[in-house]
Amino acid sequence: MKRVRFRDGAGTARTGEWVDESGAPADTATCGSGGIIEAAGQTYDPDAVDILPPVEPSKVVCVGLNYADHADEQDSDLPDRPLLFLKPPNALASHGSEVPLPAGKERVDYEAELGVVIGQQCRNVAEEAAMDVVAGYTCVNDVSNRDDQRQEQNWVRGKAFDNAAPIGPVVADPEHVPADAQVRLLQNGETRQSADRTHLIFSVPELIAEITTYLTLEPGDVVATGTPEGVGPLADGDEVTVSVEGVGRLTHTVSQ
Amino acid sequence: MKRVRFRDGAGTARTGEWVDESGAPADTATCGSGGIIEAAGQTYDPDAVDILPPVEPSKVVCVGLNYADHADEQDSDLPDRPLLFLKPPNALASHGSEVPLPAGKERVDYEAELGVVIGQQCRNVAEEAAMDVVAGYTCVNDVSNRDDQRQEQNWVRGKAFDNAAPIGPVVADPEHVPADAQVRLLQNGETRQSADRTHLIFSVPELIAEITTYLTLEPGDVVATGTPEGVGPLADGDEVTVSVEGVGRLTHTVSQ
Repeated sequence: MKRVRFRDGAGTARTGEWVDESGAPADTATCGSGGIIEAAGQTYDPDAVDILPPVEPSKVVCVGLNYADHADEQDSDLPDRPLLFLKPPNALASHGSEVPLPAGKERVDYEAELGVVIGQQCRNVAEEAAMDVVAGYTCVNDVSNRDDQRQEQNWVRGKAFDNAAPIGPVVADPEHVPADAQVRLLQNGETRQSADRTHLIFSVPELIAEITTYLTLEPGDVVATGTPEGVGPLADGDEVTVSVEGVGRLTHTVSQ
Repeated sequence: MKRVRFRDGAGTARTGEWVDESGAPADTATCGSGGIIEAAGQTYDPDAVDILPPVEPSKVVCVGLNYADHADEQDSDLPDRPLLFLKPPNALASHGSEVPLPAGKERVDYEAELGVVIGQQCRNVAEEAAMDVVAGYTCVNDVSNRDDQRQEQNWVRGKAFDNAAPIGPVVADPEHVPADAQVRLLQNGETRQSADRTHLIFSVPELIAEITTYLTLEPGDVVATGTPEGVGPLADGDEVTVSVEGVGRLTHTVSQ
């Protein structure tokens, strides 16, 4: 199942499933662009509704430098434990939205990421049990304001600003997402990032175990697992698509 | 007015006012220890109910090194703009609670702080208009796990762990809190920190203006304005009281 939240023509927030014409879960190519949404016995055209973030997290726990090739392009050493940072709810942005970049910055980058959606309140989760608390997966763009990130101890101006976390369009059940799922980013149709999640330095279970040693995760919370190499700057008018194999395609534009 | 949230004997979450015997807002000495709570036409004994955090923030935006004497004791340079970090909702803890410290750490410190409670959704607030978005003030203990804080880029394990933000017991209207309000911390009855908010490096309006340049603040969000010198370690069995003049006394215990 691929769960989507959206606002219908009357403005009502609804939860539904993104499916293809046969009623099966939409595939990566059609989920986000094509297919149909079924909700409360009705069928909706995804292009005729406002897609909302698929979850309402109390926090997004993000992981930095979790692909060796990206750490290398950032001239950073590999961390010996996960580098964690936070995006609060104000950072969320929707599939189909126009994301305004923070004003007056020289360099704001895209970062395609696999997002792990938590399904139940949890703390002190063992690695072996971590998949039990995973509701599914989504696509995240970890939009990063490098001007400030480079100057500050904690990446608040750099990572937690409004709309710094476009997310969606759906939460896909874990069985749709293969162990070697491709994570990709297209900027104006050109591939900029492409990797698969077997290259994560810290795996999803390792991340959940480490985070929940310190923090309770709540249903709907998201762990953004880090970005592969190929990050680059965003510019006014760009169209960005993050795709995760088995999830679908998160697309948004950017304005300066 | 001093607003309090609590759970009555039947488990119902209620909002009320903390007053003295005459019905006037309780003073710093009695609010948190003594006085009465009025809610929905009834009167409650504060010692007979479970006090809840007075707000349900989407985030607590914290400020580091905002008193020169504390920056000095931490061997840190004065920041040229506010040092920001985040505590998510899992960090909240209540007046009257027993706060379990993170396991296996050598040094976990108390930090008494003035908390600013936001009253309306706001972004890009000018300094001159900042007090318009302030609903009131509260007491915060910015509990800090130094073992991890010293090792990590972003202070997530160090500052965002469960129960790292005891807060309350009330939100006091701004008129109760003088411009030179004393911020104090008592550990087992001994004064450890005492300063007044005229010594803040960045004032409340400056902080709100800077934060909302990047992040939307929501009603109930809290800005924790930093701690004065005198921070020190917590130990199993400690009783900690943070008092802010005009607000009241936030008291909790600590277990290891």
